[in-house]
Amino acid sequence: MGAFRGSAPLTSDWKHFRTSWDGGVCTVTFDRPEKLNALTFEVYADLRDLLAELPHRGDTRVLVLRGEGRAFCSGGDVHEIIGRTLEMDHADLLTFTRMTGEVVRLLRECPVPVIAAVHGVAAGAGSVLALASDLRVVERSARFAFLFTKVGLAGADMGAAYLLPRLVGLGRASELLLLGDTLPAEQAERWGLVTRLVDDGTASEVAGQLARRLADGPVHAYAQTKALLSRELDMSLSAAVELEAVTQALLMTSADYREFYEAFSEGRDPQWKGR
Amino acid sequence: MGAFRGSAPLTSDWKHFRTSWDGGVCTVTFDRPEKLNALTFEVYADLRDLLAELPHRGDTRVLVLRGEGRAFCSGGDVHEIIGRTLEMDHADLLTFTRMTGEVVRLLRECPVPVIAAVHGVAAGAGSVLALASDLRVVERSARFAFLFTKVGLAGADMGAAYLLPRLVGLGRASELLLLGDTLPAEQAERWGLVTRLVDDGTASEVAGQLARRLADGPVHAYAQTKALLSRELDMSLSAAVELEAVTQALLMTSADYREFYEAFSEGRDPQWKGR
Amino acid sequence: MGAFRGSAPLTSDWKHFRTSWDGGVCTVTFDRPEKLNALTFEVYADLRDLLAELPHRGDTRVLVLRGEGRAFCSGGDVHEIIGRTLEMDHADLLTFTRMTGEVVRLLRECPVPVIAAVHGVAAGAGSVLALASDLRVVERSARFAFLFTKVGLAGADMGAAYLLPRLVGLGRASELLLLGDTLPAEQAERWGLVTRLVDDGTASEVAGQLARRLADGPVHAYAQTKALLSRELDMSLSAAVELEAVTQALLMTSADYREFYEAFSEGRDPQWKGR
Repeated sequence: MGAFRGSAPLTSDWKHFRTSWDGGVCTVTFDRPEKLNALTFEVYADLRDLLAELPHRGDTRVLVLRGEGRAFCSGGDVHEIIGRTLEMDHADLLTFTRMTGEVVRLLRECPVPVIAAVHGVAAGAGSVLALASDLRVVERSARFAFLFTKVGLAGADMGAAYLLPRLVGLGRASELLLLGDTLPAEQAERWGLVTRLVDDGTASEVAGQLARRLADGPVHAYAQTKALLSRELDMSLSAAVELEAVTQALLMTSADYREFYEAFSEGRDPQWKGR
Repeated sequence: MGAFRGSAPLTSDWKHFRTSWDGGVCTVTFDRPEKLNALTFEVYADLRDLLAELPHRGDTRVLVLRGEGRAFCSGGDVHEIIGRTLEMDHADLLTFTRMTGEVVRLLRECPVPVIAAVHGVAAGAGSVLALASDLRVVERSARFAFLFTKVGLAGADMGAAYLLPRLVGLGRASELLLLGDTLPAEQAERWGLVTRLVDDGTASEVAGQLARRLADGPVHAYAQTKALLSRELDMSLSAAVELEAVTQALLMTSADYREFYEAFSEGRDPQWKGR
Repeated sequence: MGAFRGSAPLTSDWKHFRTSWDGGVCTVTFDRPEKLNALTFEVYADLRDLLAELPHRGDTRVLVLRGEGRAFCSGGDVHEIIGRTLEMDHADLLTFTRMTGEVVRLLRECPVPVIAAVHGVAAGAGSVLALASDLRVVERSARFAFLFTKVGLAGADMGAAYLLPRLVGLGRASELLLLGDTLPAEQAERWGLVTRLVDDGTASEVAGQLARRLADGPVHAYAQTKALLSRELDMSLSAAVELEAVTQALLMTSADYREFYEAFSEGRDPQWKGR
């Protein structure tokens, strides 16, 4: 995970959620448990800026999103966001909604796999943050709710109307986004929204194990896998196979590919360098 | 659901299916029960024209499609359509097939949620009408059949080869469209084609309840949700998040969004205006 | 299945897999059972060339892919391919990876339905060959493994990052391609990767029956169904309904469509000509 830096400083203190780094795994913990981790303007801004910085830090191989307390994230705070947007003019409204979309775009385009550890409620924007992650570890009692129409807005928020049909199909996405009803974890698993369905109280632990596995693996190969999964949603078959051909030719010159072959030939496990 | 009108009259009498309006819910009932509601050229033309008029009427918030008698719709009538197309030249054939595709395009692009109440058989074009609806209430004994290859035509009819992979995935869509075999309701539910699986004899009632719920809700938010779900199938992530940002900024100026906040603050249910 | 030929000869002897033709059904049998049918450069080249020739032969209505011995195909041979690519420069690497992508592109664009008969292991490129087929007959004990990251490459290989999200959704595709873990047949069936889940030892037989049914049917209708399913993944709804309209108008002039109507009118089964 190389990093080119010019004059811009990296942020040393993220004030609107907790962060920790451990051997290449960055963990973001939403930390307003008394509000079920409802998002504020400042949390969105910090997410946007963190996601933009991550590829340039040179020390982050996997990102985990989790929530403190009884929920993953209950979405935009009713008073801190909905109340305040009612006082804004159209220009400020668009600046805000663009910021929320930017968070999702960066989650998808950031060359670092993202794992959401979901417990309790993932509602509104909280559901979309989980949706835009690459892998979702979800507790049995957890539930999603794309409840935007219940506040009078379009179900199409932060890219939900783009992403959800591409995960669960247009029919189920239409139901979820039009009606805004709650989706329990087990049904979400049958529909393709859950990577690991786990016992209550274990999402963060299992997500951490998965993150460790990825951080200790061929991370450049993972980064390219994610990049192409995201980009090829918007590409033709013909362009996609060309992109994959060039990508694999490049990775066939990598240290990790050679390491696989040497390890295989010697009958040992590969020692991945992530290069 | 505002309406700009110029000189063109609205159709006062739909002759090729039954229509009724009830508090914003338009119900279209296919009404050739002795033929399992097989479609004729005239039914297609009325569907095309009704769908084009609906957004301009100013009185329709939800559309329900249902069938009289033992079936939802058995598709194009073998004698009234297949027999007659065998006598047509290429120009008339294309005029016909374009009309059928136009019906599906309008179902997807019309800013009114469409609910199909499916009982008995939904075959051929009948299956595609249900597929192009936003929500499907389906009775347990109902069955779909995309049987176009069984009459010697491509399984790709009225947009089925576009829509079906986007609802059930390319593998299952290939099976259904190549082979043309019958898909029972319970399997269709597992595959993502069924919004509500209901007891026999209750599809119209349940569809009516769902329509009532939508018609009494924030209908402009629903209309935008549908519009973006449809359009974003054909858009890149980058364009989609921008479209969603602008849409939500617009809806944040709506009466219904303000009403949600006031109702929430006052601890009461919102009184949606659909504006 | 008409065929225009100029000066180029057809290949009379495929040396790197077994081939047989039976009444319009071409069967390709991967035949390195001692290596679990691991692919070599030459197998890829033969697949590419066979797929390019098939539409020009005029005698092939359906293609079946199967493996001799204990597996369908274990993917690229570790020594014959991985070992040798480590000695290549970037230009040769790209020539190789482009060839592998070309095989998948031809599988999707070749106007002949392809059925994979999968038993034992379908790993790496073997999984992608099954994925790029139209229908998959899979034995209960079979398993898929998109294990590219386990050799240090991107999970995006031979179009897998394009195809897999379009069959199983982006969430499950991300899991499969990032982690590279084994997917058992029954789970693959629930996820939409299996057309027919069959008892061990019967995949080739069931695939052969399905191939016979297709080869004896309205094959031009099947070919167009496949062509449009493939192409419409990359098209807008508006373009797709126009393409389907023109295609159906063309097929309404076909002998098979007329035959359906005459057979129906006479109360007999159609005698398909494939024209």
